[in-house]
Amino acid sequence: MTSRSLVVVAFGGNAFQSKGDRGAAEDYWRNAYIAAEAVAKLVNEGYRVAVTHGNGPQVGVIAEWMMLGWRLKGTPPMTLDIAGAMTQGWLGYILQQAIYNKLREKGLIPGKVRGVVTIITQTLVEPNDPSFKNPTKYIGLWYEKGEAEKLSKEFGWVFKPDPRGGYRRVVPSPDPVAHVEIEAIKRLIDEGFIVICSGGGGIPVIEDRNMLRGVEAVIDKDLAAERAASALHADILLILTDVDYAYLNYGKPDAKPLKRLTLSEAIKYYNEGHFASGSMGPKVLAAIRFIQNGGKLAIIAHLTKALEALKGESGTWIVPDTT
Amino acid sequence: MTSRSLVVVAFGGNAFQSKGDRGAAEDYWRNAYIAAEAVAKLVNEGYRVAVTHGNGPQVGVIAEWMMLGWRLKGTPPMTLDIAGAMTQGWLGYILQQAIYNKLREKGLIPGKVRGVVTIITQTLVEPNDPSFKNPTKYIGLWYEKGEAEKLSKEFGWVFKPDPRGGYRRVVPSPDPVAHVEIEAIKRLIDEGFIVICSGGGGIPVIEDRNMLRGVEAVIDKDLAAERAASALHADILLILTDVDYAYLNYGKPDAKPLKRLTLSEAIKYYNEGHFASGSMGPKVLAAIRFIQNGGKLAIIAHLTKALEALKGESGTWIVPDTT
Repeated sequence: MTSRSLVVVAFGGNAFQSKGDRGAAEDYWRNAYIAAEAVAKLVNEGYRVAVTHGNGPQVGVIAEWMMLGWRLKGTPPMTLDIAGAMTQGWLGYILQQAIYNKLREKGLIPGKVRGVVTIITQTLVEPNDPSFKNPTKYIGLWYEKGEAEKLSKEFGWVFKPDPRGGYRRVVPSPDPVAHVEIEAIKRLIDEGFIVICSGGGGIPVIEDRNMLRGVEAVIDKDLAAERAASALHADILLILTDVDYAYLNYGKPDAKPLKRLTLSEAIKYYNEGHFASGSMGPKVLAAIRFIQNGGKLAIIAHLTKALEALKGESGTWIVPDTT
Repeated sequence: MTSRSLVVVAFGGNAFQSKGDRGAAEDYWRNAYIAAEAVAKLVNEGYRVAVTHGNGPQVGVIAEWMMLGWRLKGTPPMTLDIAGAMTQGWLGYILQQAIYNKLREKGLIPGKVRGVVTIITQTLVEPNDPSFKNPTKYIGLWYEKGEAEKLSKEFGWVFKPDPRGGYRRVVPSPDPVAHVEIEAIKRLIDEGFIVICSGGGGIPVIEDRNMLRGVEAVIDKDLAAERAASALHADILLILTDVDYAYLNYGKPDAKPLKRLTLSEAIKYYNEGHFASGSMGPKVLAAIRFIQNGGKLAIIAHLTKALEALKGESGTWIVPDTT
């Protein structure tokens, strides 16, 4: 890698909330500064950086707020695409200010970086994505059966029994295709900005008679990060989470951290079901796709070990077969 | 004006809500398409466009949601700067998609415009702005005195009796100084994008020991639009609202629409108190400042008459004295 390599960093939920946090504003800031420290270290080493992040808990909070407003005050709830846009503003702002302050503290702004900006990002999905026929992502509050049926009639929502009891709304999680705003994102990166984009996997939109239209769905943020990284011809996709490595037999006595995988090995382990769907699974799948689409290096590592991961001292490296 | 003049358009509340709307998502979309039509007409005439917008009702809705979540579920409320960031995502997304679709429908994208993007925007204010000592902007729910005192202790909020009864939180409305992200905004405009920025007047931040820090305040969106228009060296500041003109003696039998004002005339009428604070007042003040800072033309006009206003067929024109 050259010192000006472009790294797309995908932050997980721990960039905003740690275990035991009650989710207050000060918790968001404290965690965001840890994430910002990771970005600052990469910038200090000369890397160019674009940032994506998850939004699962925050979409849940907004869904809960909206439902309380509807029940108690009759305030109409916004749709899920709009709720996703709200989280992009919420989390983008916090990250953008934290990263800016960290870079300024370290003398990297002005200087190596021209500024830090958040772009509200729409992610195109296929209208015939199979997930639309089989929604599986739980979102928002738990309801009694009667109220679930009422809400289903009122808003057209789909409910399923939750394994933890009660009924919860389920929504589709379609595969991301492309980001509508990718050209603006690319230009700002080229001009020296750190760009925060594709927040929460992006706002899901479909093309409908030559028009964009938001849909009630959620997008996996790591799969969306891959779409951005590939479209930007990034050198590295760096997925930061709360474990040091992807593991074989994770959680079992013979669990084995994976330090370096070729593309073929990653595909083999993925197909063997070593990586849990909804957590490590999509991260490994995003890494596989990034390498398949021409990327040189994908890494899954702990939030606090971003630089060590780039140096090969921590994290799971996934590399092309020919390396 | 040349055909490539840059117009900064400031949308008022009616770009998202019309009289009688209950504030449902479909109301937002319907109104946003009317606003998008105005933008499309300007683009079709060859103007370059940047867009700002208000967020008063939406910050109120989010403040209400957060308070319900706190009361009923113990979910910590976010601070007002974060709530403002949420509205930038919410309204930016809706405007960005509506404008994109309108431009595409008219064959202006791809073509005259490269894309439509929303930049999450922080607005710098002075830490010693006098409004911090005398907060006056009502926000959120109405409370009984006892609960207001409880919330005041819990969150440090300031409450005042509302003329309509009960107690409401009041927050400062400091004067905007500059937008932190103005350089990124400028570059995207220069490269052919329509940029939505400074939503709700921007997220208020102060400089505190060389770091940015969000503050609990709201910023007048027209005064902030002037800061953007002046920094971008825009040719025209176009403030769109729900009346056709600024008036002398507004609402009285001898009310007189103002069609063309020199800077000196505008200042005279402003100082005489012809324009209501909190509605027409800041619009005229924004226009005055824009001309004082070198702008050539500021217009206050109705949302549906944007193009007529630029042609001089509607709206109040404010021009330099030397014109």
